[in-house]
Amino acid sequence: MSTAREGAIERTSSRDVTDWWSTAISDIEPGVIRFRGYPVEQLIGNIGFAEMIWLMVRGELPAAGQAALLEKALVAAVDHGPQAPSIAAARMAATCGVGMHGAMSTGVGLLGDVHGGAGQQCMQLLERIRDQVNETGLEAAVAQTIAEHRAAGKYIPGFGHRFHPRDPRRDPLLDAVHTHVEAGAIDGHYLEVAQEIERQLAAGRDRPVPMNIDGATAVIYAELGFAPELGRGLFILSRSVGILAHSWEEREGGRRIKGPMPPPLLPTYLGIAPRAVPTEVSVDLS
Amino acid sequence: MSTAREGAIERTSSRDVTDWWSTAISDIEPGVIRFRGYPVEQLIGNIGFAEMIWLMVRGELPAAGQAALLEKALVAAVDHGPQAPSIAAARMAATCGVGMHGAMSTGVGLLGDVHGGAGQQCMQLLERIRDQVNETGLEAAVAQTIAEHRAAGKYIPGFGHRFHPRDPRRDPLLDAVHTHVEAGAIDGHYLEVAQEIERQLAAGRDRPVPMNIDGATAVIYAELGFAPELGRGLFILSRSVGILAHSWEEREGGRRIKGPMPPPLLPTYLGIAPRAVPTEVSVDLS
Amino acid sequence: MSTAREGAIERTSSRDVTDWWSTAISDIEPGVIRFRGYPVEQLIGNIGFAEMIWLMVRGELPAAGQAALLEKALVAAVDHGPQAPSIAAARMAATCGVGMHGAMSTGVGLLGDVHGGAGQQCMQLLERIRDQVNETGLEAAVAQTIAEHRAAGKYIPGFGHRFHPRDPRRDPLLDAVHTHVEAGAIDGHYLEVAQEIERQLAAGRDRPVPMNIDGATAVIYAELGFAPELGRGLFILSRSVGILAHSWEEREGGRRIKGPMPPPLLPTYLGIAPRAVPTEVSVDLS
Amino acid sequence: MSTAREGAIERTSSRDVTDWWSTAISDIEPGVIRFRGYPVEQLIGNIGFAEMIWLMVRGELPAAGQAALLEKALVAAVDHGPQAPSIAAARMAATCGVGMHGAMSTGVGLLGDVHGGAGQQCMQLLERIRDQVNETGLEAAVAQTIAEHRAAGKYIPGFGHRFHPRDPRRDPLLDAVHTHVEAGAIDGHYLEVAQEIERQLAAGRDRPVPMNIDGATAVIYAELGFAPELGRGLFILSRSVGILAHSWEEREGGRRIKGPMPPPLLPTYLGIAPRAVPTEVSVDLS
Repeated sequence: MSTAREGAIERTSSRDVTDWWSTAISDIEPGVIRFRGYPVEQLIGNIGFAEMIWLMVRGELPAAGQAALLEKALVAAVDHGPQAPSIAAARMAATCGVGMHGAMSTGVGLLGDVHGGAGQQCMQLLERIRDQVNETGLEAAVAQTIAEHRAAGKYIPGFGHRFHPRDPRRDPLLDAVHTHVEAGAIDGHYLEVAQEIERQLAAGRDRPVPMNIDGATAVIYAELGFAPELGRGLFILSRSVGILAHSWEEREGGRRIKGPMPPPLLPTYLGIAPRAVPTEVSVDLS
Repeated sequence: MSTAREGAIERTSSRDVTDWWSTAISDIEPGVIRFRGYPVEQLIGNIGFAEMIWLMVRGELPAAGQAALLEKALVAAVDHGPQAPSIAAARMAATCGVGMHGAMSTGVGLLGDVHGGAGQQCMQLLERIRDQVNETGLEAAVAQTIAEHRAAGKYIPGFGHRFHPRDPRRDPLLDAVHTHVEAGAIDGHYLEVAQEIERQLAAGRDRPVPMNIDGATAVIYAELGFAPELGRGLFILSRSVGILAHSWEEREGGRRIKGPMPPPLLPTYLGIAPRAVPTEVSVDLS
Repeated sequence: MSTAREGAIERTSSRDVTDWWSTAISDIEPGVIRFRGYPVEQLIGNIGFAEMIWLMVRGELPAAGQAALLEKALVAAVDHGPQAPSIAAARMAATCGVGMHGAMSTGVGLLGDVHGGAGQQCMQLLERIRDQVNETGLEAAVAQTIAEHRAAGKYIPGFGHRFHPRDPRRDPLLDAVHTHVEAGAIDGHYLEVAQEIERQLAAGRDRPVPMNIDGATAVIYAELGFAPELGRGLFILSRSVGILAHSWEEREGGRRIKGPMPPPLLPTYLGIAPRAVPTEVSVDLS
Repeated sequence: MSTAREGAIERTSSRDVTDWWSTAISDIEPGVIRFRGYPVEQLIGNIGFAEMIWLMVRGELPAAGQAALLEKALVAAVDHGPQAPSIAAARMAATCGVGMHGAMSTGVGLLGDVHGGAGQQCMQLLERIRDQVNETGLEAAVAQTIAEHRAAGKYIPGFGHRFHPRDPRRDPLLDAVHTHVEAGAIDGHYLEVAQEIERQLAAGRDRPVPMNIDGATAVIYAELGFAPELGRGLFILSRSVGILAHSWEEREGGRRIKGPMPPPLLPTYLGIAPRAVPTEVSVDLS
């Protein structure tokens, strides 16, 4: 039993020089750039940005309708206002002289499990339930999941919104999913799971707990066959647009070292009262 | 004379609580999300991702053809292989358990002045020359700029490529610019400047120094009216696609703590020979 | 059931304006700076950097010997060579024009669960075993933990090293712990747990699996009463020194856009063979 | 004329495999770790953390008194309250589930030219003036620099503070410098320059413009022979302590997705009034 850690290089004998930095994504030779086998000069102009995103992460061009559905999800999630920590931190960074790369890197870096992970978590939930459907049926599989979350005091990721009684992005995204199901482009099984969750969450309650942006995009990404972790990646690409727009707005404003509080407010100190440093602060045993 | 620094909040009297986090980008109310005035539910499905990017950073929807030209630039710059530091660092990060946000933030953070700034610098150069054209004419303005760069031993940003004798992304991008100039969608003045630079750089040399991806996208972004710093931001959005694809490829590979060197290689120590720590390492005056 | 997510602000009624940015760490008034109640002018010169670190994160000055022991752990973990991803990425960043803050931020950002988390994980393991000792005795508690890890095919974090048969930092750190136990400054219970793990891992094997730097510093941080997550934070502070030194060495070297591979090597493309983009790339259903 | 950019690897012929990742900092062999030639087991316990920082970045152990002076500067700059963007962003990050590495990386990443660069800029200024002293004398050299800054409408970095009429960290730091000058450990020339700046800034004004933390630490780092860029690095190391302490305070508080505004406040939308998306949003020329 021995562990890889702290700077140790992965040195399995089966890997040698040539495959260490190998990739199946881009093939670069002098005068030649191919992505997933396609020459870049043929891609430029023939496919859109959403299709390029699909090609790069999936390895193949999207089939009919797939890019259009992906594009709707990417459009929907670009921003939700300057108070979100990812946007707020990027705006602050933009006032600190760290360049557009520094501002965008700051914002992207905050999209972790708590602030940017609900979509990925919802995809994992939908997958887990769907795997269970054959065994128990949809209704029971969903009921069990909801019961488990309630017992653990946990939210169902992708449903409900603290601010919006009904997230305005839900309907146009789900309508698009329905259209694509009817066209036979996707099978709609993840949509069924998500709608059954919505139905059961609403049952016996005063107000419904509709899917939010994370839930609606999770349905789309799952229907399109993306892995949950890639769902997070796509959300980050989408939100990067908002991060860029807000960073740029702050840059244009020209403020420097913008603090998080409006001027009349100051931090409140709630700690230990003033005291003097003791004469003998520490005894060194060594 | 007094300075703003080190945590001091910008506290100009003209700003108060209500405008501290103000924005002209997103308008969020319960049940309502508007970007630049447009309800999100109308944007989803009616505009593509490239158009959404334009709307968010520019404030208005793109006019005829503008989004198509922007989209070509975004498609062209997504990746240039795993050896680029931004991609290499993101791939390493992806093996270190820092999540997709950590990997992408790492890659984006390296796109500074040296590794990601040539496009922005080329836009600034094109703007400077264009401002000078009325006074001196195009040929003289370009000649002066080239002479200044040569005298300072500096490269012209956006021209020439260490690896590609002719960057394969140049022609399809410039062809698109020509098409849009002919259609009257853009005026083509930045294109003229860039082509004159190419012409003069090639004069009296064995081989030409054609525009590279940074130069060709700089022409597009400048023709479309983007500020140079936004040009950098758009490049970062585009390259984020490659960063995501490579991070994901590494995640799927499952390697942990991937070092930058293939196994047969080790770092070389070139420093001071082994020595013992002196008994008395320091005398404290205080 | 409703969820907090995606930019929603935490808005519990019990918090109001004045305590939103409250802190018990620093108390700043015009002409006054106090940390944990102590005026900064009394701290400067009266306490060392390690004691200041302790004061800031723990809230009180360290007692006799504690700072000396902390200092040894901080000294020991500063670096382990340029091939570690955190150092390698920081060195690359330093060649990309992103400033010392960008290089250091890049390196620190890679110290996640896999590359920088073994110390924290070892502390959590030591705590778990120690909680169990009263019930089952030390030997059985350790045996059970090892058996569980072996059954799950997992390493014991903090023990063994892929590169060093015996980590040269183990002995001086554990000797210091022993000295402090003998002086009565710490109780040594975490040390006992770690040594029992070492003993059982070595039993019936050709070669021992001694504690590594993560294990030895985990013992120190646990004995000193730091929470596991703070143990990670202290490791990051320590490794930041190596990140700074390596970033600076690269800056002084003056290289630009340093790739991760030596010149004779190139990335290997292992993907799909060259192909043409199909004429009709996607059919839009919408 | 050809340019290195966009992922191109630096491939000068004078560098080969063995020196690509070479370093003069750490020498790692199985069972052996040496920093700057010294075995790690001799460094642990024999030198303090400040001395280790010095050794790592300078290559030699500090001479008498040098470490003590460095330590004072490191202690002085750890924090200046939660409203500073670097601390505020780190606290927000800590509420977003990105780990201690993510929170610290976020904070460090904001210490760019504007928010963390005044010390480095002050060191550059002190060096520039000192180089000029032999030619023009101290008084004239300082007068010229101040005049140039005033003409350009720029602050003198390192002097004055928006919040503190007199920065409480100035006196204990400068007192320490004086002590070390008297002991002959440093020559005091940078101190003289900084004091002459202070004197001239105060002349003919109602209130003085005393050195702030950036100015006082710039004097120390310059007297100790650190390069200005390293001065920034040392400030980042110091401030990382505050970033860790604040990140940890926020983690202990357990808040999630903490926005930058207190609950009664909301972002103000100042943009274009609500409008409908036009039926035909763009005409594609391609």
